[in-house]
Amino acid sequence: MSKKNKKQNKSHKHSRGAGGKPARSVRIPKSVYFFSPGRSDGSAKLRPLLGGKGANLAEMCRVGLPVPPGFTITTGVCAYFYEHRRTYPAALRSQVADSLRRVEELMGKRLGDPDNPLLVSVRSGARDSMPGMMDTILNLGLNDVTVEGLAKRSGNARFAWDSYRRFVQMYGDVVMGVQKRSESEPDPFEAVMDQIKQERGAQQDTDLGAADLKELVRRFKKLIAQRTRTEFPSDPVAQLWGAIGAVFSSWNNERAIVYRRKYNIPHEWGTAVNVQAMVFGNMGDDCATGVAFTRDPATGEKVFYGEYLINAQGEDVVAGIRTPQKIAELKNQMPESHAQLEQIRAQLEAHFKDMQDFEFTVENKRLYMLQTRNGKRTGMAAARIASEMVDEKLIDWKTAVKRVPADSLSQLLAPIFDRTAQRKAFDEGRFLAKGLPAGPGAACGKVYFNAGDVESKARAGEKVLLVRIETSPEDIRGMLASEGILTARGGVSSHAALVARQMGKVCVCAAEGLQIDYAAKQLSVKGQVVREGEFLSIDGTSGEVYAGAIATASSEIVQVLLNKTLAEDQSRTYRIFKRVMGWCDKLRKLKIRTNADQPDQAANAVAFGAEGIGLCRTEHMFFGGDRIDAVREMILAKCKKEREAAVAKLLPYQREDFIGIFKAMKGHPVTIRTLDPPLHEFLPQEDKLQQELAQKMGKTFEDVRGRVTELHEANPMLGHRGCRLGIVFPEITEMQVRAIFEAAAAVIRQGQKAKPEIMIPLVGFEKELTLQLEIVHRVAKEIQQREKIKIPYMVGTMIEVPRGALVADRIAAHAEFFSFGTNDLTQTALGMSRDDSGSFLPAYQEQEIVKANPFATVDQAGVGELMRIAVRLGRKTRADIKLGICGEHGGDPESVKFCHRLGLSYVSCSPFRVSIAKLAAAQAALEG
Amino acid sequence: MSKKNKKQNKSHKHSRGAGGKPARSVRIPKSVYFFSPGRSDGSAKLRPLLGGKGANLAEMCRVGLPVPPGFTITTGVCAYFYEHRRTYPAALRSQVADSLRRVEELMGKRLGDPDNPLLVSVRSGARDSMPGMMDTILNLGLNDVTVEGLAKRSGNARFAWDSYRRFVQMYGDVVMGVQKRSESEPDPFEAVMDQIKQERGAQQDTDLGAADLKELVRRFKKLIAQRTRTEFPSDPVAQLWGAIGAVFSSWNNERAIVYRRKYNIPHEWGTAVNVQAMVFGNMGDDCATGVAFTRDPATGEKVFYGEYLINAQGEDVVAGIRTPQKIAELKNQMPESHAQLEQIRAQLEAHFKDMQDFEFTVENKRLYMLQTRNGKRTGMAAARIASEMVDEKLIDWKTAVKRVPADSLSQLLAPIFDRTAQRKAFDEGRFLAKGLPAGPGAACGKVYFNAGDVESKARAGEKVLLVRIETSPEDIRGMLASEGILTARGGVSSHAALVARQMGKVCVCAAEGLQIDYAAKQLSVKGQVVREGEFLSIDGTSGEVYAGAIATASSEIVQVLLNKTLAEDQSRTYRIFKRVMGWCDKLRKLKIRTNADQPDQAANAVAFGAEGIGLCRTEHMFFGGDRIDAVREMILAKCKKEREAAVAKLLPYQREDFIGIFKAMKGHPVTIRTLDPPLHEFLPQEDKLQQELAQKMGKTFEDVRGRVTELHEANPMLGHRGCRLGIVFPEITEMQVRAIFEAAAAVIRQGQKAKPEIMIPLVGFEKELTLQLEIVHRVAKEIQQREKIKIPYMVGTMIEVPRGALVADRIAAHAEFFSFGTNDLTQTALGMSRDDSGSFLPAYQEQEIVKANPFATVDQAGVGELMRIAVRLGRKTRADIKLGICGEHGGDPESVKFCHRLGLSYVSCSPFRVSIAKLAAAQAALEG
Repeated sequence: MSKKNKKQNKSHKHSRGAGGKPARSVRIPKSVYFFSPGRSDGSAKLRPLLGGKGANLAEMCRVGLPVPPGFTITTGVCAYFYEHRRTYPAALRSQVADSLRRVEELMGKRLGDPDNPLLVSVRSGARDSMPGMMDTILNLGLNDVTVEGLAKRSGNARFAWDSYRRFVQMYGDVVMGVQKRSESEPDPFEAVMDQIKQERGAQQDTDLGAADLKELVRRFKKLIAQRTRTEFPSDPVAQLWGAIGAVFSSWNNERAIVYRRKYNIPHEWGTAVNVQAMVFGNMGDDCATGVAFTRDPATGEKVFYGEYLINAQGEDVVAGIRTPQKIAELKNQMPESHAQLEQIRAQLEAHFKDMQDFEFTVENKRLYMLQTRNGKRTGMAAARIASEMVDEKLIDWKTAVKRVPADSLSQLLAPIFDRTAQRKAFDEGRFLAKGLPAGPGAACGKVYFNAGDVESKARAGEKVLLVRIETSPEDIRGMLASEGILTARGGVSSHAALVARQMGKVCVCAAEGLQIDYAAKQLSVKGQVVREGEFLSIDGTSGEVYAGAIATASSEIVQVLLNKTLAEDQSRTYRIFKRVMGWCDKLRKLKIRTNADQPDQAANAVAFGAEGIGLCRTEHMFFGGDRIDAVREMILAKCKKEREAAVAKLLPYQREDFIGIFKAMKGHPVTIRTLDPPLHEFLPQEDKLQQELAQKMGKTFEDVRGRVTELHEANPMLGHRGCRLGIVFPEITEMQVRAIFEAAAAVIRQGQKAKPEIMIPLVGFEKELTLQLEIVHRVAKEIQQREKIKIPYMVGTMIEVPRGALVADRIAAHAEFFSFGTNDLTQTALGMSRDDSGSFLPAYQEQEIVKANPFATVDQAGVGELMRIAVRLGRKTRADIKLGICGEHGGDPESVKFCHRLGLSYVSCSPFRVSIAKLAAAQAALEG
Repeated sequence: MSKKNKKQNKSHKHSRGAGGKPARSVRIPKSVYFFSPGRSDGSAKLRPLLGGKGANLAEMCRVGLPVPPGFTITTGVCAYFYEHRRTYPAALRSQVADSLRRVEELMGKRLGDPDNPLLVSVRSGARDSMPGMMDTILNLGLNDVTVEGLAKRSGNARFAWDSYRRFVQMYGDVVMGVQKRSESEPDPFEAVMDQIKQERGAQQDTDLGAADLKELVRRFKKLIAQRTRTEFPSDPVAQLWGAIGAVFSSWNNERAIVYRRKYNIPHEWGTAVNVQAMVFGNMGDDCATGVAFTRDPATGEKVFYGEYLINAQGEDVVAGIRTPQKIAELKNQMPESHAQLEQIRAQLEAHFKDMQDFEFTVENKRLYMLQTRNGKRTGMAAARIASEMVDEKLIDWKTAVKRVPADSLSQLLAPIFDRTAQRKAFDEGRFLAKGLPAGPGAACGKVYFNAGDVESKARAGEKVLLVRIETSPEDIRGMLASEGILTARGGVSSHAALVARQMGKVCVCAAEGLQIDYAAKQLSVKGQVVREGEFLSIDGTSGEVYAGAIATASSEIVQVLLNKTLAEDQSRTYRIFKRVMGWCDKLRKLKIRTNADQPDQAANAVAFGAEGIGLCRTEHMFFGGDRIDAVREMILAKCKKEREAAVAKLLPYQREDFIGIFKAMKGHPVTIRTLDPPLHEFLPQEDKLQQELAQKMGKTFEDVRGRVTELHEANPMLGHRGCRLGIVFPEITEMQVRAIFEAAAAVIRQGQKAKPEIMIPLVGFEKELTLQLEIVHRVAKEIQQREKIKIPYMVGTMIEVPRGALVADRIAAHAEFFSFGTNDLTQTALGMSRDDSGSFLPAYQEQEIVKANPFATVDQAGVGELMRIAVRLGRKTRADIKLGICGEHGGDPESVKFCHRLGLSYVSCSPFRVSIAKLAAAQAALEG
């Protein structure tokens, strides 16, 4: 809820207290809010106080929709309840009694009236929906006397007794706590029912008649008395207070607590309790109950969408025992109700200005609305509905931008499995395992267990999946060549996941129970074996893994933008996407760049609207073609001279790489990071490969093995990497810088633009930067003079260790830009290794030590504070310093919004997250 | 130099400019300072401007000591020289000429006078002494004409020509750059000399007569002309300017730059140039030259200490060709000079209030003082001299405290080799290697290569050394049992070094060229092999390693305080130590605690004056006795129940440990850290040991190996450790807390005191702390109620990841104290692994990226800034929060001073560094 609402709510409470009551009782807050059509104390604005359900019931009443009357006990009472050993404020009883009297008057029935008893439901209702987590009591008000009155009035004794036995069962369970006492025991009420069905020779519940149900009620009560040593309450008012207490108590049942943890719902919010007159969809064939959406929640199409059952209670629709009918059918069966619903559908959207998900009941041809709320929808539907509501003038385009969850755009972009094919695979028992959905989309291909095989098979035209225990930079070419990546280990931020997202590759990580045997070239899950060359299908949106092939297709947007296999006017999805992106471009303050290391990646990112490269990792280029040999020669060199010779071989390769990237970026700035990873990542770890390498390089096996041992580090994350490499081996930096400027010169000479921004990684000390920049400026000067060309360039640094942030004022004296490397900054600021956090981070999320995975969303209090310090100090020295972020967080909507608030110039993310970042940036601008 | 001096210097310059010159030339700074006995422009206070040598020459003149007249060209001119392409300020020439004229007048000689030539020396002199790093020219003023005048005047042609050839050689080398052109080439002047000696059949230089020397001068000049294509300058004024330029230039020669880097001398200080009339100790047997100290610099004893040579030049004394005589001999040979020197010795100390190291020359019975400076001394001498000077009322006791370098106390505490025995070992070729001096002192013993062997042999009464490639926590018991530790790998902050310092063990790390073969049970260095059971001797003060045994003894202080084998009145060293410590205790604001994990360590620390334990690492206790089995059982447990059973076995052990520590600490607070290191450190890594373990635990080898693999981490430093263990396995924390409180209750019941302070490690998030403290407070309450005893305890946290510092305000809501874990805070703030920094940190120090090793001395700009933030935020929430440091930096004087300035309550260091920390804390208090 927004701050504004909170304030209104508060002032509302006060004005009530001051205006509606004598001066002496000013301090007694209003605890109960009455609602009935056209007369309603509350409204949708009071959601924090009344809960989502209560607020919307009140709102529907305000609009005049046919809602059964009732009242809401506020979340304030819930807070009081927990603060005062589960007791209520003094004024509550009289407020409840007053409201109940009004309900009775409106319904013309009385709670406990032997002739015409009022029945009520008692339901929970928190600020945010927590479906099924808390308790509900229906048919409250029945006892041995009123049941007869209900039977008489409805003319349906079986209905009355069935309602009664349902009530006793529900009340016994929820309020009186009669539940099964162990996992193996059957539900005690079901056991009694089964017994009676056996005695009566009944197959179904419906085979039991009124007399049987009467006996059942007797036995249920006996069970309750035995178990609780308490009689079942026959006084409807006692029943009511029991139910209210049970609903408040259910706020703190275990599953509700777990749910709130998972969805970040504060424990202090509490629930409201809604007491409402019962209406029945199960009193005969002129009764019905249903659930409907004002538009299709899957596609967003503007059609009336929903389902219903004739002569049924609400729970039957979702229980799946009877198959519900499509809402269109209602037109034939109950034309009047259908017409009324169509009208209400329009009214709801006109009023709530959003797609609604609502429940209704028809009791003896009379329609009642029981609930409405904003409907959940897919990313596809969110975008379409928002776009079309603008056309319909229901909302303005800025509201439309707010309506599409930024992350949900990935659904529009990901290739997916054909649903039928996937269900078929499941039915055939081909489901193998579930892992972390690390790269959205679907992929299938033949399984290979090393990058080399994947590459050669892919070159031969096969569709292949790379399956590894975990991946490393050596696997990059294999990952590139694959349809998707499956690993047995590593989290959503593991190397595999990181690279996969950047590449837009489908990826499932840490698939449960997956055993990979490299020697035998096979994987197995619970005894099921998949061998090299056999088909496997993975769904990176759900994390599911299937044996065999399942058909896929790439998203329409990718088909239009990248593949060019679809024309713009052939795809509604693309047109909606383009429109939303257009709105975003008008709103956002942040520039969006991309992390890309290859010309084709860069070109894709530009197609998606990237406005520059924020991170080009030069080392990814080291694995292409024969260059890895030169890289290894460089690492194995025994002296500076040998190293310089090897480095010289790399120069032409790197120059070509940069030429390609500059051209692909068409004059957009390209931030190039000098060599960053520890050198051991470039050497093979296995004996056999080391032997081969030794032979190739004319070295002994001991030479190679010795160097690998020498390069081994206890904590490579904190080891000899980043600018530390360039400082110990300045010839490497010099070669890279030379390649960059020679490439820029070549591109500019061809009449195109090139804007290199050279970025020094892992800087913590001012002098690290000045030493590396001496090389940059010297080489830049030399090449510009030699080529007689002016190359516009910038120099800057990554801020990715805390010290860099803390001395940012000194660093800014030399750096024209900072780029926050929030991956490493998170690891160092938290002292937490991304690769090792799997053993404790789940417990940390479970126990709410961290709200979100800090490697997915920027930890604002810790890492964010370092960013704030660096921004402040950096600007102190250099007011116009350019500031960006190039960690993986650059594609995370929450983090993008944080960057907007920090006032950064740009965020950089993987090509396939550019549109997500744009949307988040636009939303951040709207949030102000 | 202190700020005060700087200011005085500046105002002095101004007053000179304003007062001594007409108004128009106010802006011309005084560039030349004249000195002669009783008449001196400068003084000791002008050290920054005149350099150490120039300032002290001036000061000696002020006191009226017999100094040959001369003048000093200021360091300001040096700065000008480098800022203006090696040219001089306009006014310099006339100021030099004026001063030279005054020297000529006083000496009654003239530069270049054919009959009575003045000769001068031209020497460098920086603010801090840089012995031998810069250039010197002697005998300047000689040419083919003046040499004859000198010969006539001195009546010694050979002396004159020898002086001339020395001048030409020196000038040719230093000023004209005639030097050998490759390593293999002999010195070109020496080659010419050898040639002439061969021609003349001379054995020694002294066999050459005046004529030979004349020929030598001719050939030297020819050599110079050939090499430089320039004639040797015969004009003495030209010679003088050449020499001045050469001395200024030598400030930036390579060895001077390297020296300054090593000793942290700023490059911008520059050198002064001292031009002084030459006097000669080599003009006959009534001449002499010598070096002396006002007290013994090794022992501090108040005796006249020094050496001299009759008929020699100053350089001969240190060159070691002739063996100098002890200064006492001079009394017999030159009683007048000796008496004069004795008087000057007293005068110097009375004036400079410190032990002086001075040079003198006797020319024809006349004594000249050439230099004086504060003498370098051993730690032993520093303490004794300071103490005795207080008795002599030369200095007050606060000055005495400043006079003892805090670090030098370690020399008083370390056992040492007998010097004669060590020299003998060297002469016998038993010197093997040099490593890092990681734990000061000397040790010898039989060599064993694993901890178990060391332990069993030590138990059998052998003196043993533990020799490992590197050590790990598994080796701790072996390290404890050993006399000393030698490793082939790891820096001064490696596990071996850290533990050795804490234990006060002798340790040499990373011995160069040391090959260790565990399988063959031997080590080898350059072909020399030492097998298991053979003797080895290591000197942890120098880092030297010798084959065979060298006799050692423990320091007198340890003998008095710990061994009790020496009475207090038997040891002067102890009495001095005690006196200095007493002064420190009066001055210091910081409390000094110790890092100790065992009762005997704790007792030692108390004997050294520790005021509490700042860090008790509970895991170190895990290796004692059979407890490692229970620890491993705990780690291998497959479920919580199994784990709880194993943990329960550890409880009695831990309780006993804590009882011992509480008793040893006699009511001083004991900060106990809950389990910190990653669990894999407790499991064996080798197959064979894993197999044994499996058998012992009734598990399969695969179980054990699987768990080891599971626990393997990419970056264990950032992995599952610290409070992360206690959060995932709360039963471990609970057991440890229970042991602490049960131990405290037991001790208190026995009428003693126990003050536990429970410290949660690696806290970055507020909730990490609250979750762990829930356990602490619950168990504390339970045990206090059960035992009916009030246990005074505190709870707090380590601040050792940046996030902890950044959210210190939130953490302080729950923590009553912070202890800065600066080891890990340095690693995380800098993103620099201590264990891996060896591959780049030397280059970082070389290139002055870091001033000091950040793992030895707190990095004040980075780590220090996080500490400042944490102190500020912590106090914001809890004004009286207790603040300390327990990283290794707690024993480093610079870091202790930083902690004083931060306003911490205490520092904690290893027992053997308690007195060093006390001294540093006292000095910090004096510095204000």
